[in-house]
Amino acid sequence: MPNFLAIDAGGTSTRAVLINTSGECLGYATAGGGNPVSRGFGPALEALTEASRKALGDTGGPISQVLVAMAGASLELPTQLFRDAFVTLGHTGNVMIESDLLAAFYSGTFHDDGHALIAGTGAVGARIEAGQLAFVADGTGWLIGDSGSGFWLGREVAQAVGAALDGRGPATALTELLLAELGVVLDPLERTQGRLRAQQQLILKVYERSPIELSRFAPMVFAAPDDAVAQDIISRAAGALAGTLLAAGLGRPGFSGRPGGHIAGNAASVAAGPLVFGGSVLTKGRAVATAVTDRLAAAGGAVAPVLVVDGTVGAAVMVLKRSGVEVDAAVFARIKESLAAVREG
Amino acid sequence: MPNFLAIDAGGTSTRAVLINTSGECLGYATAGGGNPVSRGFGPALEALTEASRKALGDTGGPISQVLVAMAGASLELPTQLFRDAFVTLGHTGNVMIESDLLAAFYSGTFHDDGHALIAGTGAVGARIEAGQLAFVADGTGWLIGDSGSGFWLGREVAQAVGAALDGRGPATALTELLLAELGVVLDPLERTQGRLRAQQQLILKVYERSPIELSRFAPMVFAAPDDAVAQDIISRAAGALAGTLLAAGLGRPGFSGRPGGHIAGNAASVAAGPLVFGGSVLTKGRAVATAVTDRLAAAGGAVAPVLVVDGTVGAAVMVLKRSGVEVDAAVFARIKESLAAVREG
Repeated sequence: MPNFLAIDAGGTSTRAVLINTSGECLGYATAGGGNPVSRGFGPALEALTEASRKALGDTGGPISQVLVAMAGASLELPTQLFRDAFVTLGHTGNVMIESDLLAAFYSGTFHDDGHALIAGTGAVGARIEAGQLAFVADGTGWLIGDSGSGFWLGREVAQAVGAALDGRGPATALTELLLAELGVVLDPLERTQGRLRAQQQLILKVYERSPIELSRFAPMVFAAPDDAVAQDIISRAAGALAGTLLAAGLGRPGFSGRPGGHIAGNAASVAAGPLVFGGSVLTKGRAVATAVTDRLAAAGGAVAPVLVVDGTVGAAVMVLKRSGVEVDAAVFARIKESLAAVREG
Repeated sequence: MPNFLAIDAGGTSTRAVLINTSGECLGYATAGGGNPVSRGFGPALEALTEASRKALGDTGGPISQVLVAMAGASLELPTQLFRDAFVTLGHTGNVMIESDLLAAFYSGTFHDDGHALIAGTGAVGARIEAGQLAFVADGTGWLIGDSGSGFWLGREVAQAVGAALDGRGPATALTELLLAELGVVLDPLERTQGRLRAQQQLILKVYERSPIELSRFAPMVFAAPDDAVAQDIISRAAGALAGTLLAAGLGRPGFSGRPGGHIAGNAASVAAGPLVFGGSVLTKGRAVATAVTDRLAAAGGAVAPVLVVDGTVGAAVMVLKRSGVEVDAAVFARIKESLAAVREG
């Protein structure tokens, strides 16, 4: 029996899993970042094949299908390069490229209709219909969107501290946390050209890094539970993320079953389907996840979310589904349990 | 009698003016960007000396003092490089480097105490005491501050349109303006991977430029006077800018006369002094300037602002003042009028 190879290619790490047709995990391995958009094609493909080769191990046997889940799947990618890379592993067929957003969704459910909200470095919400992305909201990137994401939180932290230092904003416990992280000493009397030296150093240190690195300040909002400024940032993040999910369609009636089709007025309405939460802001920062579900409940879109750590399970679910294998509750449970066993082992 | 050379070195253009001790403008010329931080030292110094050489013309005679006003004056700059550059023009003395913020202030007044608010690509407010920057607020750059600046307005426009396209935000007239500017056609039915094609193109076009280029979308908020989203952006910009001025000290009593000194509780209080507005957001977008003064009035800090187009007059005022020449109302008027005459001629 041929086996299936599913790969979750992230920006900083890649996870490959080998499964059989009943959802049993036969091999699992990781490698470095596998996203060609952020890493470049050469290093990305090398990470994909490295993780895959290790996951295949000594199993030998033929691979029936290969599926890669990654951000940027909607871009026009040179699919032949992916095919060529997997020929070295003995796979001469097609390589399916799917959205990391769908992989995250299917990591939490085997159903084909529902919603997903991912808030890691970026933030995006989606309504899934018949196993496809029907409506996507936000995911517009750090510069003009990704509201409530890790980058967004980190920028809010730096912004709030900058404002606290010159009196535009209220004093906040975040100042001590951020300045300590940056190695800046705050002397309230040391002022040059009308500006606190600490603020000048904050500015220099923020701009000597790439903008996206602001995301590493995000966890500070969870480290100041009694601080009004930090709590306000969390509250606004949750409001933005709930808004993203509602815009994607959570709470709207019915699924059309037609991918990308309009759903307004569709009489064949079904239950709202599962809601999947992914990304460190939601899975590690429980304060945000709780605030988001509170807001969804208030907006009439209450569904208890399933939390997922990454898209590995979902990539495995998809490689089976896209190959015509039915994934029911039993197969889904088998994928999750057998994968968890090798990951912990 | 030796003359004075004053240079206003901006990021995109440099203005040099030659004046005599009574404030009469004897020569004026411009050159390309003269800021070493943004342009690099070689090109910046070349722009400074090119504008200066042209301003000097055939006057021959010795230069008593040279003053350069520019952003980044608070950084540790290799002043010897500036001295060396002006030796080629026959000036063997020192070159004074002053803040562009002070030059903007002195373009609107000859008094030594007051406030300035500049909102061009960036945004910064300052309280000037005894001819020095006593308190500066914001100016923390596009990534974590400069609230109400041209960049800030442009980012708000792109953000609002991104949100309108996927339903996170209300429909806005800015969508048509921005998409037309970017050459993106909006087809409300054309959707790939759950996203409107127009939104996908917006994202690609925004991220293929450098972040700071978002500032060119700023004028769109003034082109949609009946649009609630645009008006909300203007209102929030004005609120932020008024807050910046109030944080810098507008409305706080008394000037200490001690540069950088603390002013709280200082009994020797004087009148609030003039308020100078500079930068295209305030001088071209009158809606913002009016909204800022309305908010200042509401906060008890009402002073009618003087609008200035750049820091050329102020650089001239400063080169005289820093050389011990008294600049009174008559000298100030002479600088302004004689400079206006050569600039228009």
